[in-house]
Amino acid sequence: MIVIMKQAATEAEIAGVESDLKRMGFMPHRIQGVERVVIGAVGKQTVAFPVGLETMPGVEKLVPVTAPYKLVSRQFIETNSIVQAGDLLVGGRELVIMAGPCAVESEEQLLTIARHVKAAGARVLRGGAFKPRTSPYSFQGLELEGLKMLAQARSETGLKIVTEVLNPQDVELVSSYADILQVGARNMQNFSLLRELGRNGKPVLLKRGLAATVEEWLMAAEYILAEGNDQVILCERGIRTFETATRGTLDVSAIAMVKQLSHLPVIADPCHSGGHWNLVLPLAMAAVAAGADGLLVEVHHSPREALCDGPQSLTPANFRRLVEGVGRVAAAVERSLQPVQEAEGVTS
Amino acid sequence: MIVIMKQAATEAEIAGVESDLKRMGFMPHRIQGVERVVIGAVGKQTVAFPVGLETMPGVEKLVPVTAPYKLVSRQFIETNSIVQAGDLLVGGRELVIMAGPCAVESEEQLLTIARHVKAAGARVLRGGAFKPRTSPYSFQGLELEGLKMLAQARSETGLKIVTEVLNPQDVELVSSYADILQVGARNMQNFSLLRELGRNGKPVLLKRGLAATVEEWLMAAEYILAEGNDQVILCERGIRTFETATRGTLDVSAIAMVKQLSHLPVIADPCHSGGHWNLVLPLAMAAVAAGADGLLVEVHHSPREALCDGPQSLTPANFRRLVEGVGRVAAAVERSLQPVQEAEGVTS
Amino acid sequence: MIVIMKQAATEAEIAGVESDLKRMGFMPHRIQGVERVVIGAVGKQTVAFPVGLETMPGVEKLVPVTAPYKLVSRQFIETNSIVQAGDLLVGGRELVIMAGPCAVESEEQLLTIARHVKAAGARVLRGGAFKPRTSPYSFQGLELEGLKMLAQARSETGLKIVTEVLNPQDVELVSSYADILQVGARNMQNFSLLRELGRNGKPVLLKRGLAATVEEWLMAAEYILAEGNDQVILCERGIRTFETATRGTLDVSAIAMVKQLSHLPVIADPCHSGGHWNLVLPLAMAAVAAGADGLLVEVHHSPREALCDGPQSLTPANFRRLVEGVGRVAAAVERSLQPVQEAEGVTS
Amino acid sequence: MIVIMKQAATEAEIAGVESDLKRMGFMPHRIQGVERVVIGAVGKQTVAFPVGLETMPGVEKLVPVTAPYKLVSRQFIETNSIVQAGDLLVGGRELVIMAGPCAVESEEQLLTIARHVKAAGARVLRGGAFKPRTSPYSFQGLELEGLKMLAQARSETGLKIVTEVLNPQDVELVSSYADILQVGARNMQNFSLLRELGRNGKPVLLKRGLAATVEEWLMAAEYILAEGNDQVILCERGIRTFETATRGTLDVSAIAMVKQLSHLPVIADPCHSGGHWNLVLPLAMAAVAAGADGLLVEVHHSPREALCDGPQSLTPANFRRLVEGVGRVAAAVERSLQPVQEAEGVTS
Repeated sequence: MIVIMKQAATEAEIAGVESDLKRMGFMPHRIQGVERVVIGAVGKQTVAFPVGLETMPGVEKLVPVTAPYKLVSRQFIETNSIVQAGDLLVGGRELVIMAGPCAVESEEQLLTIARHVKAAGARVLRGGAFKPRTSPYSFQGLELEGLKMLAQARSETGLKIVTEVLNPQDVELVSSYADILQVGARNMQNFSLLRELGRNGKPVLLKRGLAATVEEWLMAAEYILAEGNDQVILCERGIRTFETATRGTLDVSAIAMVKQLSHLPVIADPCHSGGHWNLVLPLAMAAVAAGADGLLVEVHHSPREALCDGPQSLTPANFRRLVEGVGRVAAAVERSLQPVQEAEGVTS
Repeated sequence: MIVIMKQAATEAEIAGVESDLKRMGFMPHRIQGVERVVIGAVGKQTVAFPVGLETMPGVEKLVPVTAPYKLVSRQFIETNSIVQAGDLLVGGRELVIMAGPCAVESEEQLLTIARHVKAAGARVLRGGAFKPRTSPYSFQGLELEGLKMLAQARSETGLKIVTEVLNPQDVELVSSYADILQVGARNMQNFSLLRELGRNGKPVLLKRGLAATVEEWLMAAEYILAEGNDQVILCERGIRTFETATRGTLDVSAIAMVKQLSHLPVIADPCHSGGHWNLVLPLAMAAVAAGADGLLVEVHHSPREALCDGPQSLTPANFRRLVEGVGRVAAAVERSLQPVQEAEGVTS
Repeated sequence: MIVIMKQAATEAEIAGVESDLKRMGFMPHRIQGVERVVIGAVGKQTVAFPVGLETMPGVEKLVPVTAPYKLVSRQFIETNSIVQAGDLLVGGRELVIMAGPCAVESEEQLLTIARHVKAAGARVLRGGAFKPRTSPYSFQGLELEGLKMLAQARSETGLKIVTEVLNPQDVELVSSYADILQVGARNMQNFSLLRELGRNGKPVLLKRGLAATVEEWLMAAEYILAEGNDQVILCERGIRTFETATRGTLDVSAIAMVKQLSHLPVIADPCHSGGHWNLVLPLAMAAVAAGADGLLVEVHHSPREALCDGPQSLTPANFRRLVEGVGRVAAAVERSLQPVQEAEGVTS
Repeated sequence: MIVIMKQAATEAEIAGVESDLKRMGFMPHRIQGVERVVIGAVGKQTVAFPVGLETMPGVEKLVPVTAPYKLVSRQFIETNSIVQAGDLLVGGRELVIMAGPCAVESEEQLLTIARHVKAAGARVLRGGAFKPRTSPYSFQGLELEGLKMLAQARSETGLKIVTEVLNPQDVELVSSYADILQVGARNMQNFSLLRELGRNGKPVLLKRGLAATVEEWLMAAEYILAEGNDQVILCERGIRTFETATRGTLDVSAIAMVKQLSHLPVIADPCHSGGHWNLVLPLAMAAVAAGADGLLVEVHHSPREALCDGPQSLTPANFRRLVEGVGRVAAAVERSLQPVQEAEGVTS
């Protein structure tokens, strides 16, 4: 940590900061600059960053030298981590496509879509049973019934299941049905939920909050790892900016940056970021070109009647085009799509 | 709702949309413009907005005519709502000041600060027992012990208590100690929590999410009211923008706007928005000038040693200056500060 | 400047940076931390910040110690600067209100409004002759004819004139008619324009760019001062954020911050930030409460027919209410409104 | 245009709006909804959008039905426009790479880099002679000398030249040296400059402002086309968001969206958006995958000593890797790189 003193700081103020640093276990190194003094504080930063120092007389600001996360950092583990759910591997050379409806609406709807996405090349079925909705008057999900339908779709298609969990007290229930537990953007800093998932051990898909910095996102992952669960997949889903032409702004820079800062796999959700189905294909290809390890895609056989997110859902036919396009881009960045074990014939 | 058709939409596509609108219970009114067709859809929007329509062939976009919230709107209740906690009224002519430490750290710390803020003019004591922290390695709060200390401070000072609740399952516990339950910015869209608070009935202080639009904020309040609890105080605490010179950007425009859109009281948190103690006074006065019904302020007798948010906490002496300044601005906007029943003499 | 080395930096890399720093005239001070090395570079930063260093092997990042601006900083001049245009003083105890139409539309329109705003308490008449418009199909201003009308309004009312200049080559022309030259938000980093205004010497009203940081804003002012003109008034006019309920977000935190960082006066434009006339009064009062030295307000006797910015313009009656309200808030922050020398009776 | 009336609007207010619409040449169509009245205004919107209507009593808001731009829209010209500079075509199947230093520093520097980028596959040499810099103390460019060096580099290498023009009065001078004239992000709404470029006729590279919406960007292009010059290349260069880990956020959604809304070619600048050289390759590939028609890349043979933007500049070796990677992604989206006529052997 570095303490930058004010230009007008007195010798007594500087000495006061040095003495406080020593009391906290740091060794202060004073540098006398042309205009002001800077103090380097050497020591192991065991607990939290001592922000209170900033209120001491004469102090202008504190500059941290090390990132606030440890376990998720590329410095801690230099190689890419692979998250594993049964025979599914996320983070290796092969990209993973997760696809399905925004919400589980019925057994028939789910199975229809599950067969389509499997045939097209998805390895994981997505579908919300617990739905966080902006309006209390919107469809809130089938809850337990939805979870059962997901489990049934898994046994019929062999697809793995990813579904959202909203509450710490639902983690056990959801994890008894799902292969991967999703934390939605709105819950990225629901720390009780993160800790519960850390104790649970099943793979977690952690979406970036719509206004979360990369550092806050990695700190949220750190919560899960700190509880002992290192099976975390990050998911960039578009951030909130001033632009209103698109629902969100897919932050491909963050994808590339996170691959440098962390060893965890990162996938992208091109549907929520664009907000419209005809942006999904270019955004999916852009995410893979930027280094994403997979995709999370909304597919519905009848988007017009979908109970949520219809406008940004792909039809099965458009989803097949997406898989083809993404496959070509994957090859261009020396990746490939994970093979589907046994594809059944489905048409749409 | 208005459906704007594409310039190239065919008669069949237009008829298709009209037929779908009828099926959903709307009466379509077609307007033939110079370049394109616009369809007004008349009808009671009972359930959710039918976004799926946007995927129909020929449709360019949907434009909602009515706001998505009802119970919180100024059209539903035209007069200012007053939230009541015992003899404390929030939303009337008299402004309410809530003050105290970021976190409850010890019995002594809390009581010391409680006496200071009461003497200066606060009516409510704030203090976190459950703390949502960006880092898993930061102080996470004293939890139940903290709640007990808050209750004790109430019985010693007569101040009301506002404290944060993080989880639906903690609502009952926290509400047995607190007078007002705070929902933090990160939890503004934790819908299970909002619903639980709606069923609980105690007054709720709902902070605006750091990237939440005014509409989303009001929709979050709508969740609480829809469950039967109309005792909601909104709290603007600064939004996240591109600016890095300040921790957040206090959105005084939102304060003024919300007073027009909703009947609920709105207070402001000038500490989190500025991020530095020497911005707190001007921001507090600005918020009151813009129409805020009260303030939520961090005060610590030794900010340097505070376990959280030291840099943005006021000393007791600076807090007294804030109350004086705010009192003068209150008078300028034809408001006044709520009188403290019995102020004890405390110095700092 | 401080150079933070990577954890894995080798001794050769560290020595390479030290040697480069010496070559550039800095004296390096190495601090050996627990995990990595940090180098304090002592020396006068005469030219630009040596960003290229960041590409040297082993370097993680550079941290500047001093602000990049000098002449505009509070450290350079500790007292508040007063900008002077004839007998008008901006930046002293007395607040200045500048008011008038968005655009000069006709002699009659301008004079009507000028008389109204003078009677209500404005000291300066605003009005655009050269208009920067988002659309090439919008009214672009009366140009020279508009300037002449402004000069005429000055001679009839005694109000000072502030009007926008868009181009370096128009500076001489506009300054021969105006008392204060306005740089619009879109031109905040039009450096040729800034330099020309720096050489011109007349007072400049520098609006903050709608996505400019406080630092960039102060750097833009530095351009003008560096050319020899210290008569600069800063103007906060709302920044662009994710919020769409209001046209912009009036950044009162920036007003308070700039008063600490700089000696220059700062006024606020509550019309562009709110975007709607019924937000103008609360925002104007908030800006003054936060420390603004004056206001720039759009007034039109018939907002419905205004050629630009009608929705955010005040009627004369509402403007009188604004002056009254602002006067009360001014007193609350120990300021007052500048007296108008001779108010003529006008009614609306 | 649609006028949404307030719920409480009276019949007289509604009739007043209808009468005003007629006076303005619109034919009003009233739709009586369940809660309120909506008026469709049919007519050719010849001049500007009549925003003043929003101030009429009873009016809640106006909703535009058509986009405010015409000449740049995909509805006006359905096929992709090709911008042509000699034998260089931008916007066709073949992607164009423009590369070179941030600033022209010397004859030797420019020629060295020009040879490298040509050998690697660039068709256009970039390099700033007039530099817009945040600080008045930074290197401001070699101006006329720089233009001459660019012309010389063209005659020695056969590369086309793109360089920035800052002022309307410099357009003629710069266009006598350059093949493509660049408008920087800060000048996107410098309307005098845009108009001058519209009259000039040479191809224009129009960078998106760092906080400009897609609509404002297209409106800026509309200024140039409205003056008669349809040779406009759009350039996405990263927008300003809350994220500080990267210098800007490359908005690939905007690239995909603009290809749908407009017929103009769009290229991307992956250097300014990432702000660091090791993000340039993934961002360049992402932009091409999203549909970009080319790239604008900063290359310097010695980034550490570059007078500007060193940290985000590629070395010649990294630039060659970028061209290879981009070539592979181009093939994946059924595009290819434009062949360089005669590549000379250069090594680095």
